[in-house]
Amino acid sequence: MRTPVSTDPTTVTTGPIQGSSKVYKPVPDTDGLTFPVRRVHLTNGEHLDLYDTSGPYTDTEATIDLENGLPKMRDAWTKPAPVDGASTQLAWARAGIITDEMRYIAARERVSPELVRDEVARGRAVIPANHKHPESEPMIIGKAFAVKINANIGNSAVSSSIAEEVEKMVWASRWGADTIMDLSTGKNIHETREWIMRNSPVPVGTVPIYQALEKVNGDPTRLTWELYRDTIIEQCEQGVDYMTVHAGVLLRYIPLTAKRVTGIVSRGGSIMAAWCLAHHQESFLYTHFRELCEILREYDVTFSLGDGLRPGSIADANDEAQFAELRTLGELTKIAKSYGVQVMIEGPGHVPMHKIAENVRLEEELCEEAPFYTLGPLATDIAPAYDHITSAIGAAMIAQAGTAMLCYVTPKEHLGLPNRDDVKVGVITYKIAAHSADLAKGHPHAQERDDALSRARFEFRWIDQFNLSLDPDTAREYHDETLPAEPAKTAHFCSMCGPKFCSMRISADVREYAERNGMSTQEDIDRVLAQGMAEKSAEFADNGNQVYLPISTS
Amino acid sequence: MRTPVSTDPTTVTTGPIQGSSKVYKPVPDTDGLTFPVRRVHLTNGEHLDLYDTSGPYTDTEATIDLENGLPKMRDAWTKPAPVDGASTQLAWARAGIITDEMRYIAARERVSPELVRDEVARGRAVIPANHKHPESEPMIIGKAFAVKINANIGNSAVSSSIAEEVEKMVWASRWGADTIMDLSTGKNIHETREWIMRNSPVPVGTVPIYQALEKVNGDPTRLTWELYRDTIIEQCEQGVDYMTVHAGVLLRYIPLTAKRVTGIVSRGGSIMAAWCLAHHQESFLYTHFRELCEILREYDVTFSLGDGLRPGSIADANDEAQFAELRTLGELTKIAKSYGVQVMIEGPGHVPMHKIAENVRLEEELCEEAPFYTLGPLATDIAPAYDHITSAIGAAMIAQAGTAMLCYVTPKEHLGLPNRDDVKVGVITYKIAAHSADLAKGHPHAQERDDALSRARFEFRWIDQFNLSLDPDTAREYHDETLPAEPAKTAHFCSMCGPKFCSMRISADVREYAERNGMSTQEDIDRVLAQGMAEKSAEFADNGNQVYLPISTS
Repeated sequence: MRTPVSTDPTTVTTGPIQGSSKVYKPVPDTDGLTFPVRRVHLTNGEHLDLYDTSGPYTDTEATIDLENGLPKMRDAWTKPAPVDGASTQLAWARAGIITDEMRYIAARERVSPELVRDEVARGRAVIPANHKHPESEPMIIGKAFAVKINANIGNSAVSSSIAEEVEKMVWASRWGADTIMDLSTGKNIHETREWIMRNSPVPVGTVPIYQALEKVNGDPTRLTWELYRDTIIEQCEQGVDYMTVHAGVLLRYIPLTAKRVTGIVSRGGSIMAAWCLAHHQESFLYTHFRELCEILREYDVTFSLGDGLRPGSIADANDEAQFAELRTLGELTKIAKSYGVQVMIEGPGHVPMHKIAENVRLEEELCEEAPFYTLGPLATDIAPAYDHITSAIGAAMIAQAGTAMLCYVTPKEHLGLPNRDDVKVGVITYKIAAHSADLAKGHPHAQERDDALSRARFEFRWIDQFNLSLDPDTAREYHDETLPAEPAKTAHFCSMCGPKFCSMRISADVREYAERNGMSTQEDIDRVLAQGMAEKSAEFADNGNQVYLPISTS
Repeated sequence: MRTPVSTDPTTVTTGPIQGSSKVYKPVPDTDGLTFPVRRVHLTNGEHLDLYDTSGPYTDTEATIDLENGLPKMRDAWTKPAPVDGASTQLAWARAGIITDEMRYIAARERVSPELVRDEVARGRAVIPANHKHPESEPMIIGKAFAVKINANIGNSAVSSSIAEEVEKMVWASRWGADTIMDLSTGKNIHETREWIMRNSPVPVGTVPIYQALEKVNGDPTRLTWELYRDTIIEQCEQGVDYMTVHAGVLLRYIPLTAKRVTGIVSRGGSIMAAWCLAHHQESFLYTHFRELCEILREYDVTFSLGDGLRPGSIADANDEAQFAELRTLGELTKIAKSYGVQVMIEGPGHVPMHKIAENVRLEEELCEEAPFYTLGPLATDIAPAYDHITSAIGAAMIAQAGTAMLCYVTPKEHLGLPNRDDVKVGVITYKIAAHSADLAKGHPHAQERDDALSRARFEFRWIDQFNLSLDPDTAREYHDETLPAEPAKTAHFCSMCGPKFCSMRISADVREYAERNGMSTQEDIDRVLAQGMAEKSAEFADNGNQVYLPISTS
């Protein structure tokens, strides 16, 4: 099935995340479908089930065979008849049909299938699920659902091999990437993507113009519509679930970037700008957009309309070029949806905090609330090597404002290609941003994990605290650096305060005291206090200062 | 002067930050005073001067002698006569006096001395500068100025030595900590602090109750006002610039924490809670608050009124206990100011994003806009080992809303004691949060650094990009991982796209093209485009596709 390549991806990371196991739960109202959760087993006998993006790789029962790929699960699912020529989740949703994919997603998100269908029908959510990628576990991107994150992987002309990229895909989804984008630009683009597609449990996105550019040896002026179209079809056939198309970079917008501090920073945007200027014609992505729609709806590939003119610096944020393109993306959104094709909209980039909300407001206004999918944004330019952090600040805020999916940024942004460790740091950082936004949006169930972890922390259940965290391995490692011994993981203190004193322990004593005295409301408290402080103090002494016993023994 | 200790801090990190040198500039209207800047030298012959917290340690001309400490610079400065019995910056500011400290700060912040005086007089800013810490370089904490960050250091019963702590102080201020807090709780508290005070170029804060607790062998019920008072005086005499005092933890608030998920998480708060409950009396910090004011104003030590009941989890954010204490801090603020004592207010903690702004609003309302000084807050509980990031999200947002100083959080938060690397990561992360907030608040000059770095990025001045960043060492290291050779630092491409194609390069071509065709406004663009695309295309071809030459040669 694949061209042989020099480096075979024969090993990837498998096995459960520390303290968890894979559990499959039934998808209601289906013919025996199940969906996976990551079950965290707590030392107090309880458990917490978490949304699970990691696929069969974390299932101890699964046999992983990279050569043959993951099971083609969705091939067996019920596929409704086309509606108005479109076999897409959007067309079906509009027709009132709830697909198996929608039921699966509703179960994962713990919402009703009707909500899933309605949000897809409105174009406020997308389900990137190419019919030719039956290995994927359906997921949804939309502001009514949990905020999603994407991890970019892909080799470049100067670095990385296929094996590394497949492992990065498995690795990224292990730690929580909801989708991955294969942005390969070097050799073996087709083969790399084939290995990734057949083994990816999460939807895969691409930027097809990158491969098209390789086909003309890197000279954007030699690109043609025909070559691009063939590339799109090639990728649709492989099963790519969503594609970034920079169709909003119009000739007349390009000079608007001339006075910018950082010009055009999107690769796709600059490729199209080069083509437009060289030919002095409107972009073929724009002029052939309806043909693109016809192709994508065959496969139910989702458009990710690219922001080729996104700002690459704080100075360029929210400028005329950026918003001119966004208006054009709004036009294209309407066209795509008229073909029954699902659409999301890509956003910046570099934006100072006070200009973030405006991006979401305009996007929703111009693009009929199509899901917004942003890259960060970075809240400042001054921290290369820490741009996962600069961008997590912007990402959390833009997600709170309504962005549906966040494209991660790794510590290597602006500096080099991320390695496996960078991918993990990027994913965890973006899970933090996404989850923070879920909390701020009041997403149902989001706080369950915070509460479970905080209860574990309060009760000195160290192991549970580790296992409930986004990265149990690192949490445990950091703890063990100061207090490596196994008893320290059950100790009622930590290295911050040492064994003599611990604020958490005193808090537990306060709780016991309040309960003993029936103090739960302000009225209770006032009543008890009114009984006289001296009296209570005496009672306390009578008890041998018992509630502080752990302290006075030190 | 100091008790001999087993481990001498004989070596600390010295020398300039990569690409920078220390320059002293005159403080206007003073008798020859100068203030330091970190000058970044760019490869294009320009330079950028940055606010510099690092003290003499980054000055190649300075002789560092830890045994004798830094020069007692401020001893030679003009000290106005007391006003109403108070020799404090607040008293002087109210009397219309502009002190040398205010002029020094105005020069550092690039604002007028009158603004500094007025903000201090209003109580909206503080200058933590104990008369007995003449080694410190004056700085200001207030919402009208650049957002500041604090780094906590200090040993604990189970870890760390004096030498390590002194190096952490030098190291933290090297990377940008505006103040440091010595939170030592283990052995040799007095000696550790003495070494830090005498060698610290930045203000030093403490939580005196920690040392008081050591004096009663860790049993909070044995604390007394007299013992606490003596500890305060001991620390005032040593030169501590600001002190956290948890005087707002009242007996009647304590039971409000009983139903919390994480109870009382502040060490100081829980110590006082333990004392109050054991004695069933109101906290001696509260009942003796006026005596405290009398002591602190002797030295011009600033109150940092602690939030002993701050939330320790998302579930507990903005609850009754937290805001009850805040109201009491408001009362105490008025009392302290009536004595001429400067005050700032400490804030949380753990707060989901949508509840952050309310903290600032209430603090300003209740505490007469006294500078707010927050610990993060963490925007979620689920990422131990990454809490520098969860908290940077909250910190950036709360600073945007008006918080004046951010207490850093390191990756080891909740898990262990930070080592030297953790301190650096914490400081850099908080510089990101503070600077992002400065940008969002439109702080004058803040964007200069972003623009300089982005211009360097756009022009492929790699060395300048590294040196303008918050952490030149790590930025260069990450770049070199993929492209280690020296020529790569002048190459017009990077490892993300490789040599064949680079969006930044195309942008430069677009700029050249627009300039050649006189396209700078939308009107120009429309006019040029109206001349006919075919014509322009022909012209472009006549030029041999010159603007894309770098691409077509590949």
